[in-house]
Amino acid sequence: MARTGRRPGNPDTRDAVLAAAREAFADRGFDRASIRSIAAAAGVDPALVHHYFGTKDQLFLEAMQVPFDPGSVLSAVLGQGREGAGERLVRTMLAVWDSPAGVAAAALVRSAISNETFARMLREFVTRGILRRVAKEFGLAPTEAGLRTNLVATQIVGLIVVRYIIRLEPLASAPADALAPLIGQTVQRYLTEPLPAAAVRVGKN
Amino acid sequence: MARTGRRPGNPDTRDAVLAAAREAFADRGFDRASIRSIAAAAGVDPALVHHYFGTKDQLFLEAMQVPFDPGSVLSAVLGQGREGAGERLVRTMLAVWDSPAGVAAAALVRSAISNETFARMLREFVTRGILRRVAKEFGLAPTEAGLRTNLVATQIVGLIVVRYIIRLEPLASAPADALAPLIGQTVQRYLTEPLPAAAVRVGKN
Repeated sequence: MARTGRRPGNPDTRDAVLAAAREAFADRGFDRASIRSIAAAAGVDPALVHHYFGTKDQLFLEAMQVPFDPGSVLSAVLGQGREGAGERLVRTMLAVWDSPAGVAAAALVRSAISNETFARMLREFVTRGILRRVAKEFGLAPTEAGLRTNLVATQIVGLIVVRYIIRLEPLASAPADALAPLIGQTVQRYLTEPLPAAAVRVGKN
Repeated sequence: MARTGRRPGNPDTRDAVLAAAREAFADRGFDRASIRSIAAAAGVDPALVHHYFGTKDQLFLEAMQVPFDPGSVLSAVLGQGREGAGERLVRTMLAVWDSPAGVAAAALVRSAISNETFARMLREFVTRGILRRVAKEFGLAPTEAGLRTNLVATQIVGLIVVRYIIRLEPLASAPADALAPLIGQTVQRYLTEPLPAAAVRVGKN
């Protein structure tokens, strides 16, 4: 799932576009940052941005330096029904992070946590790139989708930070097979178990 | 639970001791870093370190710049039996982090995640200052205590990062009363529910 392949274009122009994209996504968020405005800030034609980076989603991932394609990761998890989805999500996530791509991903999380611009980009990425897709795939009620997917994020982000960044033992060295059922059950519960009324009131995103 | 009060001694000497303590705790871990060796590195008498900072635990908290006393926080949670302890732990944690002390605590977590020295100190602190005490209070089996408390750490650390650092909505603004039962149930499960055999094999810390 690591992203490789051709990187078209002049390196300086690519860098200028990526810098403009980071600023735009952090300032205005993904939805309101247009390819047109990013191209203008970088002093290039919008068509060139599309030619270099493809879609706005792809530009965003490149700007975030995300070392794997979350789309293909999610496809491996979703679309097989709700049952066992929590465990599949954790298992797939651990497979990506235990791979060489995980080292770059850990660096990304470190940046996002210590730098407010990256934090805003990560928030955008998690909300848009992952959580909304999970909410849609699970058919979560609109009043509950925000809180449910945020709860999932607490467990997944915590697993990443404790296993790959703080590296608490024995969890940091535990095989994925031992962790996926235990933590997957939490994710499954956050996605599917009835929420208390007090929680539903805050669940709307 | 914020720590205030007198801070005895010459500021330069205090700073030298704290710098030596940070280096010692990060390099050798809490157990192997002695007050004697920290005093020697700072060029002062061990008695002065005790006079300035009290116990090694207190020196460690000061060196970590922990803005509250985890001992009194844990006392509020533990010692009331196992039932409901997960929810009490989450509720107490949210009360501390939602208070003014939480701002300083968030800065500490940012540092720990972006800086390897602080990461090692945080690992020491979490393991020794919190997890071992939880394990003892709950009478966790030695073969399971490590993994169980690490699992609790994934949920608590993830809650902190998502609510106070990445600030995903709606969870970042949700009242503690709505979150404590939901997330507390996860903590309770990690502390008390039977673990699968594959997990017990890695549980020993």
